[in-house]
Amino acid sequence: MKSYLIASALLAAAVPAFGQRPARPGGGPAIAALREAALHDDYAWDITEGLTTEVGQRLAGTEAEARARNWAVARLKAMGFADVRVEPFDMPTWTRGPEAAEILAPFPQKLVVAALGNSASTPPEGITGQVVGFDTLGELEAAPDEVVQGKIVFVSHAMPRTQDGSGYGHFGGPRRHGPTVASRKGAIAIVIRSIGTDHHRNAHTGVMSFDDGARPIPAGALPLPDAEQLQRVLKRGRPVTMRLTLVSQTGRGQSGNVIAEVPGRDPALPPILVGGHLDSWDQGTGAIDDAAGVAIVTAAAKRIMDAGRPLRTIRVIWFGAEEPGLLGGLSYKAKHPEPHHAVAESDFGSGRVWRVNSKLGKAREAEARLLQEALAPLGIVPGKLDVADGSDIGPMIADGVPGIELSQDGTHYFDVHHTPDDTLDKVDPADLRQNVAAWTTMLAVLSGGIEPEPKRRSRR
Amino acid sequence: MKSYLIASALLAAAVPAFGQRPARPGGGPAIAALREAALHDDYAWDITEGLTTEVGQRLAGTEAEARARNWAVARLKAMGFADVRVEPFDMPTWTRGPEAAEILAPFPQKLVVAALGNSASTPPEGITGQVVGFDTLGELEAAPDEVVQGKIVFVSHAMPRTQDGSGYGHFGGPRRHGPTVASRKGAIAIVIRSIGTDHHRNAHTGVMSFDDGARPIPAGALPLPDAEQLQRVLKRGRPVTMRLTLVSQTGRGQSGNVIAEVPGRDPALPPILVGGHLDSWDQGTGAIDDAAGVAIVTAAAKRIMDAGRPLRTIRVIWFGAEEPGLLGGLSYKAKHPEPHHAVAESDFGSGRVWRVNSKLGKAREAEARLLQEALAPLGIVPGKLDVADGSDIGPMIADGVPGIELSQDGTHYFDVHHTPDDTLDKVDPADLRQNVAAWTTMLAVLSGGIEPEPKRRSRR
Repeated sequence: MKSYLIASALLAAAVPAFGQRPARPGGGPAIAALREAALHDDYAWDITEGLTTEVGQRLAGTEAEARARNWAVARLKAMGFADVRVEPFDMPTWTRGPEAAEILAPFPQKLVVAALGNSASTPPEGITGQVVGFDTLGELEAAPDEVVQGKIVFVSHAMPRTQDGSGYGHFGGPRRHGPTVASRKGAIAIVIRSIGTDHHRNAHTGVMSFDDGARPIPAGALPLPDAEQLQRVLKRGRPVTMRLTLVSQTGRGQSGNVIAEVPGRDPALPPILVGGHLDSWDQGTGAIDDAAGVAIVTAAAKRIMDAGRPLRTIRVIWFGAEEPGLLGGLSYKAKHPEPHHAVAESDFGSGRVWRVNSKLGKAREAEARLLQEALAPLGIVPGKLDVADGSDIGPMIADGVPGIELSQDGTHYFDVHHTPDDTLDKVDPADLRQNVAAWTTMLAVLSGGIEPEPKRRSRR
Repeated sequence: MKSYLIASALLAAAVPAFGQRPARPGGGPAIAALREAALHDDYAWDITEGLTTEVGQRLAGTEAEARARNWAVARLKAMGFADVRVEPFDMPTWTRGPEAAEILAPFPQKLVVAALGNSASTPPEGITGQVVGFDTLGELEAAPDEVVQGKIVFVSHAMPRTQDGSGYGHFGGPRRHGPTVASRKGAIAIVIRSIGTDHHRNAHTGVMSFDDGARPIPAGALPLPDAEQLQRVLKRGRPVTMRLTLVSQTGRGQSGNVIAEVPGRDPALPPILVGGHLDSWDQGTGAIDDAAGVAIVTAAAKRIMDAGRPLRTIRVIWFGAEEPGLLGGLSYKAKHPEPHHAVAESDFGSGRVWRVNSKLGKAREAEARLLQEALAPLGIVPGKLDVADGSDIGPMIADGVPGIELSQDGTHYFDVHHTPDDTLDKVDPADLRQNVAAWTTMLAVLSGGIEPEPKRRSRR
């Protein structure tokens, strides 16, 4: 018996709309039933397994992402969602070619390397230069141009593991700004220590851009073992020569947002938007980034749909082209100026939700507190009421759209993020279910009350 | 102050020869002092770091292994060992070329693959065929030829983590025998689930051979995430087509054993031989396999040398070409029919020693028991007295040469073994020191008593 049937049975009394009910511990029995049943969810695993197995990597703007959209449309229709559609958009593309790095002197050896998104291409035979190393982005910034000119810059850093992923902001600097700084100082290329926290021979890619007209140069990331090896070699004090091959291609392509709905009883009310992103980097199969995210929000919406009909429409969105710069989110925002009751995105892996932040506005504080109350039984810490963030939805929240943030435990997120290691085996099914339970609970609270479908009721 | 100086100071009274002393708890104060001091050892780390940084990978029979021999000779001489020399030998070589695997249908995607040692080469453009999968080697063996003929065989297995590494024997079957079985049944190639226990996108290579005239076919290993992906794809029940590129080259080359000695006070007595192997697979830098091994035994011998002069000569050997089939060990065995007091090899990573086995013969049981007693303070379990094993030294022990086996904890050995991930960061310095302490203790017990050098004594 599918667990959602249990939930439906327990929902003999419909979930009452927010405001008609006191903030009971745990959100009351109807929400508790949905929450508990979601801890046995299989929908999210099935989507994550299916998308990563039957499509695999789905780099933004490529034929693989188009196959992923087709897969998504078919799956969302099969699950019974309404108004399943694609909102397409054009975009510039960047695709990876042959890559290699080799220390030629003083100690000849190969290193593993991966180009960063938007890296300039080297010729097929690569480029050769002397390596100059810096321990931080700040050191590179402070270096006189003549130290860098004509050289291959190497930048290290000391990114730590953090639960909330907050290290990514500062320590992501070498990836986001390093190439521009190196280019401005006349470097012929840059390699950085991967913006990651694991010690495997897998480089972390990710997007960067050359600011304000800085001349594009080849830019790559070394896995941590390789970055530390290069540091040890540099520390010997002898000139270090490297050959670097980072071939890539640019062009134009199409992406798109896949949208599906659980229609609300009152279509005039602003919808709740929940999303993740469909595109992935190209090295892994995008399991934690972000098959898990689209799977979690879709499973939660499906569980509400199975339980009955919410007052407000739930809009599920699988954003296209998040990785190259939130293109899906920006496209949606431009096309959908209509009001939203709330927006929320799952895009931080498949680790358990440990905190809820929200930014629903002063007038909706009771709703926000009920949400905290309803999530607490899942071990979720009540966070702030004036903060919410998300990737594709970030620009909407910044513009004042009410937002919810179910913060996932990211302690090990940057072990895998943007690497070949982002594969299905990194997803813990129990953690995934806890996420589904959190999102189901959130939707139950915010959707304004679920009523069993007339058809369902008549069957009882 | 270097820790061996502490040891020397504590050795004011020389370590008495075995037999002149009762089996005191822990082996007595002189051995205890050596053992404790070795827990602060830096020699082993310095060798491991130096060899992996300044040489890196050192595939048997190649120019890289020759550079490693030069490095070894220079380092052993600098450390003060006597009679440092190379005993060269010729060998067949196998070297890796371009490699790729791609599922063409039904779900197009790339997989990571690495050729097994002695794989036949595909043409540069690869070969294409339908995949037929088996969950075990036994299933492949039982399959009718017509199921396999003209296909690419995939063999999985369920190798578990074990402390003593005992899973490698049985579950290594798909690598060692799978290619022969597949070839005999008419397969055009074989890919196996890596003989490993980690979930990273790093394939485990390793040697295999085609038995009894089986026609060589291309043979590769998929990382666990890729093997599981292929299994999921196969389970969908649709024909699976793969393109496999495994280019390699064969030829002839030279290897050699690097030998160094701590001269004993009585050169007429049979030496104690302690070794590891200098060659490594080509994907990583051979840190745990087996820079750590040569480092551990060399550090232990050096600590004895620093403490004084042992009764018996300690012969340190860095074997060449272990990986392709114990070629260094077999070469040494052929050239050195002279008696040995004992032989021992460190070739199971850098995990802590957890057990001591030995096979010194009935007449030397007291010596074996003293060894157990002296190692126990390091948390080392007394094992068997009629069993000892090792890689290069295995054939000597099989021929009756007395052997010691300091068993290392291999729980995570096969996470890294023979993969690109075999790099310095996998070596835990504290574990490495515990190994040095164990080997120093073993040498102190077996070398027949250390006497401070006259020069040293006169300085006090």
